Amino acid sequence: MSEFELIERFFRNPARAQAPSDTLVLGIGDDCALLQPSPGMQTAISTDMLVEGRHFFLDVDPGALGHKALAVNLSDLAAMGAEPIGFTLALALPPERARNEAWLAGFSGGLLALAAAHRCPLIGGDTTAGPFNLCITVLGQLPAGQALRRDGAGVGDDIWVSGTLGDARLALGALRDEWSLPADVLAIARQRLERPTPRLALGLALRGVASACADVSDGLAGDLGHILKASSVGASIDARTATHLTAAGALPSLAGASFDSGTLQQAVLTGGDDYELVFTAPSAARHAVQSASARAHTPVTRIGRIEAQPGLRLIGADGQSAPMVARAFDHFV
Amino acid sequence: MSEFELIERFFRNPARAQAPSDTLVLGIGDDCALLQPSPGMQTAISTDMLVEGRHFFLDVDPGALGHKALAVNLSDLAAMGAEPIGFTLALALPPERARNEAWLAGFSGGLLALAAAHRCPLIGGDTTAGPFNLCITVLGQLPAGQALRRDGAGVGDDIWVSGTLGDARLALGALRDEWSLPADVLAIARQRLERPTPRLALGLALRGVASACADVSDGLAGDLGHILKASSVGASIDARTATHLTAAGALPSLAGASFDSGTLQQAVLTGGDDYELVFTAPSAARHAVQSASARAHTPVTRIGRIEAQPGLRLIGADGQSAPMVARAFDHFV
Repeated sequence: MSEFELIERFFRNPARAQAPSDTLVLGIGDDCALLQPSPGMQTAISTDMLVEGRHFFLDVDPGALGHKALAVNLSDLAAMGAEPIGFTLALALPPERARNEAWLAGFSGGLLALAAAHRCPLIGGDTTAGPFNLCITVLGQLPAGQALRRDGAGVGDDIWVSGTLGDARLALGALRDEWSLPADVLAIARQRLERPTPRLALGLALRGVASACADVSDGLAGDLGHILKASSVGASIDARTATHLTAAGALPSLAGASFDSGTLQQAVLTGGDDYELVFTAPSAARHAVQSASARAHTPVTRIGRIEAQPGLRLIGADGQSAPMVARAFDHFV
Repeated sequence: MSEFELIERFFRNPARAQAPSDTLVLGIGDDCALLQPSPGMQTAISTDMLVEGRHFFLDVDPGALGHKALAVNLSDLAAMGAEPIGFTLALALPPERARNEAWLAGFSGGLLALAAAHRCPLIGGDTTAGPFNLCITVLGQLPAGQALRRDGAGVGDDIWVSGTLGDARLALGALRDEWSLPADVLAIARQRLERPTPRLALGLALRGVASACADVSDGLAGDLGHILKASSVGASIDARTATHLTAAGALPSLAGASFDSGTLQQAVLTGGDDYELVFTAPSAARHAVQSASARAHTPVTRIGRIEAQPGLRLIGADGQSAPMVARAFDHFV
């Protein structure tokens, strides 16, 4: 199979039908793709590179990998309040994988299904032989001036998170034999690790409501830390609320396994790979936040408050505040 | 050095100062970069992935690698007639290279110098540990409807190429010990291999003049073949003209080395890695093509003609026409 046959067979999609109307002028097959931006809109761009053995296990289901590769990029658009336009895919494949049609069909199936669900067509890319590597660049649009940036958090704002946090870390630990999980807990947690849900509807609904927003990819403490740094503020978060943010932790079987609550809390605060949104909003906007949550069919939880004092503090069960190192996952440390 | 320090030290650039006025709203540091498209303009996007040992030698000068990684992407904008807006860089680095500050400084120096020369700032990206891999996505803009596409070549149109072709292949062969080259020839050829010149000024000047255009990355025959296929036409090209398209071949020392003219011709026709433009234009537009060439300070050569008969033919020294397989470089064959 040649490079061109590979693209033709596995990565063609009915691009024009999927894209927001009139946005895609020219898709795969020329030197560049061409987009026609809508009047008054800004373009949002984000790039993520995924490496085998680091961002995913070697034997991961190819459909799940295709889903996740695009989901982590769509999550960046969600965090900005942008709606998807399209994406490019660059793929380095070892020769044996380039010949593995079942793998390619599974991968492109998972990828293009999520793309179709969010009207985000594949508009271009590159394929090459080499150690397996996946790089996606996603493009989105949003009305000028309405982006959910990281630098808008104000003192007194509430801190919110969407959905559940920590499950991906629980699954990763179980798959790495750091701990064991009951089968029903692992099933839920693994789904969160392998098929994260980009919170695009919530991002759109939070335009004009949230004062700052980021997605939780490197861990809540680290990603909230980016907001604090960009906004020159500090924060306190409620440890008791945080401990109960995992979906898996709510299952009776995990309580029966007397799973360490400290590990649960760590998974929520620093686990990462959640692809939820962490955002801030003035306390006067609580009703508007709940309304956005309802419109987006995405639950949200209020977990803390922005403060003038720099740094991140954790308020424990005893009501006492303790400083926390807001350290994000770092590939080189 | 952490991931964030690495980005801060080696990949920050005065982005806003470099971008076309008012286009860049938000650069590195949030979930997405934000661009404000100019009214009436379309956005052009292209992605290229470079793998060590395949697209470049392990010991290549890091400044040359930085230059080339962006140049091959800018060349895609040139082939579309687009002007650069900015680019994202995703970089997988083995840990020893992430610690090699001299290498990082050289690489980012070559990359950002070319970016500055073309007012194309680095607006975002991703870094991770992993087998060395480089993925750049470049964005450009052009007035709606003026893109130089591949599907516009008409029967009777002239075929033109910019600059010189085949030199990169001559250098590659010498570095691989397929043949030897006199030192002065190798110096010129190697410069073309390692520091190609994206023909952005020519691409802009050819708007409204060229009927179809592509850049020569996979080899003249293959890239012209893409135009022929997209335009549902065929072509004849003049083998004698093609043989004289290398810069290195014009040096007396190569003639003295009695270098095989068949090899020279093959290097021009199928060598690739040239990053020149191959384009078509009606014969009535010859003066306009020459005028565009002069404005862009980029020489062009007329090498053949578009014909109704499908396929690519080579007209030899004897005036006889022989079919040629228009096959582009393929990473998986």
